[in-house]
Amino acid sequence: VMKIYQQAIDLKVKNVIIINKKKNLKYKHKFIKKKIKVFHDHSKIKKIIKKKIDYTMCSISGLSGLKPTLGAINYSKTVGIANKESIICGWNILKKKLKKNKTNFIPIDSEHFSIWSLINNVNKASIEEIILTASGGPFLNKATKSLRNIKPKDAIKHPNWSMGKKISIDSTNLMNKVLEVIEAQRIFNIDKKKFKILIHPKSYIHAIIKFNNGLVKFLAHDTHMKIPIFNSIYFKKNKKIQSKQLNLKVFN
Amino acid sequence: VMKIYQQAIDLKVKNVIIINKKKNLKYKHKFIKKKIKVFHDHSKIKKIIKKKIDYTMCSISGLSGLKPTLGAINYSKTVGIANKESIICGWNILKKKLKKNKTNFIPIDSEHFSIWSLINNVNKASIEEIILTASGGPFLNKATKSLRNIKPKDAIKHPNWSMGKKISIDSTNLMNKVLEVIEAQRIFNIDKKKFKILIHPKSYIHAIIKFNNGLVKFLAHDTHMKIPIFNSIYFKKNKKIQSKQLNLKVFN
Repeated sequence: VMKIYQQAIDLKVKNVIIINKKKNLKYKHKFIKKKIKVFHDHSKIKKIIKKKIDYTMCSISGLSGLKPTLGAINYSKTVGIANKESIICGWNILKKKLKKNKTNFIPIDSEHFSIWSLINNVNKASIEEIILTASGGPFLNKATKSLRNIKPKDAIKHPNWSMGKKISIDSTNLMNKVLEVIEAQRIFNIDKKKFKILIHPKSYIHAIIKFNNGLVKFLAHDTHMKIPIFNSIYFKKNKKIQSKQLNLKVFN
Repeated sequence: VMKIYQQAIDLKVKNVIIINKKKNLKYKHKFIKKKIKVFHDHSKIKKIIKKKIDYTMCSISGLSGLKPTLGAINYSKTVGIANKESIICGWNILKKKLKKNKTNFIPIDSEHFSIWSLINNVNKASIEEIILTASGGPFLNKATKSLRNIKPKDAIKHPNWSMGKKISIDSTNLMNKVLEVIEAQRIFNIDKKKFKILIHPKSYIHAIIKFNNGLVKFLAHDTHMKIPIFNSIYFKKNKKIQSKQLNLKVFN
């Protein structure tokens, strides 16, 4: 909560929702002192937002992200969804609601954002293969023997991305990549047989698309979530973001 | 000429132009026997073509390609230009003519075709860098000493592409890549400071574009001219071409 508190002050936020009752009661007064309103559930958003806002980012983790996301579609011109579970479990409902409200949707999960960047405005029938890349996690190529004494803290040490604990564990045991294939299959409505997974420890390439016409397109960006987030906000504008120099030696 | 003769028969061609006077006289009768008309200059095309045709490929080598290409723009809906010299020397004239005749233009040179595939329909201002790849030619990493006894036939042995002698020599001494940067700078009207060259001996990637938004797109296709040619003909259609399996190990 103190992290949200600091962010709310830094970004001059006017309204905050804290679902957890105990924490809501405990910290409410701190926010109120700074003239920040505190709510305890999403239903109050309707009262705060009077007309469609430009952008909402849905990044609540787990399936509890679904309901607020469905709400966000009503009052947003564009929603960025970082929450895998709501896409995997609730895509059909999300899709209907997006269509009904003419709301733009941009996936924030870096692999899906990368695929989207390559095939947005492309005829889906022209796609032969979609390859998602996986780093292989911290235990790739380790001898089975050496895994006997691993601790949870070793399992959450992702080699390339700094992420939450749950997704880090899912990456380590590769389940995350399976979830990502399901997620991609839903978002892009492409036959699951067209998806492949490539173990790519450098995590340099995030998506590879092979087209029927013989062309193969690859997408790379810094392994930092600021890139998909920045692009989901400014996707129609030509805005510049500072990023690392190209590491072109990777191909040689 | 015998190669053209065979192609004309295989593809049921009705009209052939042979500029070289001696060869025209020597082989004319062979074509006529097969009911193929033979002309000796491009000016006769106007009589043959009554309405705009779908596609013309301009692949005459050297600057003598310019005039026929300017003609082709008049009577074609789309022209594919494989001839570097006419683009480098005559782009301003070609560009005006393309605009006036509302003729589509597609570059066939594989690097330019690859760049075009990545930035066609993209706002040019959003491009930060364009990287052309060069194989480095047959003498890359060879000791200076070992170059003392090389013969012309060694210099035309390109490691990845099967091409004509002139362009093979230009590749070997890297002049071809300089010409390609000039060519790309003309076609795409992008500041020459934004171009870079990467020595990439595997010739797997043909073009790399870095955008202001932090995204990097790469294009690969089989090192065979059938890919750019096929795509210049069918670029608006979803047609399938047989191509090699992806070699994904290149990134690891």
